[in-house]
Amino acid sequence: MPTTDVIQLPPQLPDALILELQAIFRERFTTAMAILEHHGRDESTYPLTLPQAVVFANSTDEVVSLVKLCNQFEVPIIPFAAGTSLEGHVLAIHGGISLDLNQMNQVIAIQTEDLTATVQPAVRRKQLNVELKDTGYFFPIDPGADASIGGMTATRASGTNAVRYGSMRENVLALTVVLANGEVIKTGTQAKKSSAGYDLTRLFVGSEGTLGIITEITVKIYPIPQEVAAGICCFSNITDAVQTVIEIIQSGIPIARVELLDELAIQAINQYSKLSLQEKPTLFFEFADSTSSVKEQAEFAQEVAKNHGGQDFEWATHQEDRSRLWQARHDAYFACLQIKPGARIITTDVCVPISKLAQCIEETRKDLDASYLPATILGHVGDGNYHVLLVLDPLNQQDFTEAEQLNSAIVHRALKLGGTCTGEHGVGMHKIDFLIEEHGSGAIAVMHSIKQALDPKNILNPGKILRS
Amino acid sequence: MPTTDVIQLPPQLPDALILELQAIFRERFTTAMAILEHHGRDESTYPLTLPQAVVFANSTDEVVSLVKLCNQFEVPIIPFAAGTSLEGHVLAIHGGISLDLNQMNQVIAIQTEDLTATVQPAVRRKQLNVELKDTGYFFPIDPGADASIGGMTATRASGTNAVRYGSMRENVLALTVVLANGEVIKTGTQAKKSSAGYDLTRLFVGSEGTLGIITEITVKIYPIPQEVAAGICCFSNITDAVQTVIEIIQSGIPIARVELLDELAIQAINQYSKLSLQEKPTLFFEFADSTSSVKEQAEFAQEVAKNHGGQDFEWATHQEDRSRLWQARHDAYFACLQIKPGARIITTDVCVPISKLAQCIEETRKDLDASYLPATILGHVGDGNYHVLLVLDPLNQQDFTEAEQLNSAIVHRALKLGGTCTGEHGVGMHKIDFLIEEHGSGAIAVMHSIKQALDPKNILNPGKILRS
Repeated sequence: MPTTDVIQLPPQLPDALILELQAIFRERFTTAMAILEHHGRDESTYPLTLPQAVVFANSTDEVVSLVKLCNQFEVPIIPFAAGTSLEGHVLAIHGGISLDLNQMNQVIAIQTEDLTATVQPAVRRKQLNVELKDTGYFFPIDPGADASIGGMTATRASGTNAVRYGSMRENVLALTVVLANGEVIKTGTQAKKSSAGYDLTRLFVGSEGTLGIITEITVKIYPIPQEVAAGICCFSNITDAVQTVIEIIQSGIPIARVELLDELAIQAINQYSKLSLQEKPTLFFEFADSTSSVKEQAEFAQEVAKNHGGQDFEWATHQEDRSRLWQARHDAYFACLQIKPGARIITTDVCVPISKLAQCIEETRKDLDASYLPATILGHVGDGNYHVLLVLDPLNQQDFTEAEQLNSAIVHRALKLGGTCTGEHGVGMHKIDFLIEEHGSGAIAVMHSIKQALDPKNILNPGKILRS
Repeated sequence: MPTTDVIQLPPQLPDALILELQAIFRERFTTAMAILEHHGRDESTYPLTLPQAVVFANSTDEVVSLVKLCNQFEVPIIPFAAGTSLEGHVLAIHGGISLDLNQMNQVIAIQTEDLTATVQPAVRRKQLNVELKDTGYFFPIDPGADASIGGMTATRASGTNAVRYGSMRENVLALTVVLANGEVIKTGTQAKKSSAGYDLTRLFVGSEGTLGIITEITVKIYPIPQEVAAGICCFSNITDAVQTVIEIIQSGIPIARVELLDELAIQAINQYSKLSLQEKPTLFFEFADSTSSVKEQAEFAQEVAKNHGGQDFEWATHQEDRSRLWQARHDAYFACLQIKPGARIITTDVCVPISKLAQCIEETRKDLDASYLPATILGHVGDGNYHVLLVLDPLNQQDFTEAEQLNSAIVHRALKLGGTCTGEHGVGMHKIDFLIEEHGSGAIAVMHSIKQALDPKNILNPGKILRS
């Protein structure tokens, strides 16, 4: 899927629909090319795919108006906010309207006494943490990109903190959702648990805009831990690093983060972030707890690492040093982009049972060593979730073919070892076939029947998760 | 709903179906009255409701055979194992076959390296813990009754440990499910997280046998904590006890359990369990962590309790003393049954945002004080989840009316305060109307459309969760 970036103008929407939308949204309905283009890509390498129009909605009611019209005219709607998705989730592959939710970016309520916050869908995770700053609480889910919380909900995102705090699956309590027929429902409550009927909240979490449009989200927030310590430790080979992680996880200590970066990733971030880390497979650790627990956990982890040949354990307890380290980790994507001028990256994303992680990464490293493409391995190894960043020339079709072959091998390996085809990025357009392999035709038929029941005209982000 | 226990013989199943079932299940297909009676009740106070037959299945394949036949003949199937449900879940209110899964009681695999165990549906939670005994791991979910793990999955159960480990929602990784058409699907994988499509696992968790029949469950297991300490502390009034809990929860310390028992409940367990606890509102605490963390957490909790007038904090660090305490807590139901000879109990079950818990319990206490029925308040207050045990004479219709009125007031209060009509017992037959109030007609319509999509002939536990 090379990014040829040849702009193909989509067919026009029905005139009657345009008139209605103009009446409601005025200048917030647009077909201006620059805006269509902005909504025609995400962080994947799919070619620019223009929607037929963009509508900027600023309330649940406006979303309802739009959905009712699109339902009537059978025109697709594709929700859009940060545009940081990685598998083509926001592309209007069947035409239709890109629903830009960025004006719905208010933190509606912070309920520290209930450890929850309620936000509109375009609130970015960093923005929520800024608004939480003086409360003593924080929102832990951190997928790297400054994604919108609506998008994170829709893709069941997770990231570096998930090993301790879980993914969006565990951290969304309640939703407001606009259904395909324009009806607004509330799923879940502010209560921490419930046995009240089918778990609609979890059904919409991870549904990628295909079952309803999420317009409010209540998430869990957590007290900022008393003490946080971050550390790094390098290893002479990647297997030793992974074995260290496996042993720490199996011990059950509540480690806050543990990330793996291979040699090439460290090289890249040294260059990009002006660091001088040893260019070896490296683990980034974070411990966050009471002061004495952090000490205990850190000592335990250090001991385990040492037993696996871990070298030069270094600690960063000052907020500034920690931030610099984690910023470097998050910049790995951009750092790897610099490996080859003008490059683009395809990021793979699988998750396996922790007992299979070492085998999985070893075999993948062999695949990568046999390929001519530059590729780095990194990830949230504490969850058994890892990524390969495949660095390619967007003008070179062979690079794409090679990258897709590697991706396919990585996914098949994960499936064979009892894992999943996507740990946190979602299915989008890119993993539809892998999804079928993972779940089997029976479970996929169940998904289709749910989609059909909730969106009979297939207007909600069609062609994502399930083929249509 | 008095238990009149007049046995009404159900109409007979179609002869052709009986012949087919006899051919497959032989003596494991039965219409013997004693067995029908055993399958005609649960722990609720609903009158005996006989199924038309009982089938004992011993494999997923056998469940498939049964489901295919029931689908063909449009006969209801009601899964049954421990029979400990509290809201009429297992009653054959539309006739049909009680599917007894008790022969499917094998622990299939214990994967300590992945912190998971895979079990058949009738494995009891205590049985799993016995099988885990020498591994250093345990399964924490503990609803009190020695329920089956299939049933716990189907009702999204939780219990005393949920404040630390979550409910079945968070602890089921993967399922094998027989669908209404007889197809077998697998949901989820052994991987800790996934963004691969609709969350079918969470859809079946809490679906109470209405969407599919669960025949295998993979659950999370956890390392046994280094140190466990239990403590009790009494208060001069229930509000102070609840405020103590709220403050501990809001601090974020990972308390393992915190249970409230009011004065009358303590009286009852003193008598039943031969204890001599002070007869005042009491909190039972448990801390489970590293030795130093347990010390810190316990000191913190003790300080908070003291600030709220908590008296005579007593600790039990020996396994034996702890077990005696928790056994007493779990026996509260049976203890309360002794308050009135020949009594039965209706247990209410709501869960509210923790900030609303004190108000909720205070107002409920007033309701109870104004009623002539003996009633105790207890529950998993760390989650905002509490129960009222209403002690009534099963032969007295007025007692039932009074109990139902109290239950209704308790549920409406919880809903008004942003809570849920059931924290952990499920909907069954008893909370169908409350479910509608909680979710609203739009969300209930979504549930109906999912039910329709997955079970178009309405053969799977019809009349539970949703009216039919």
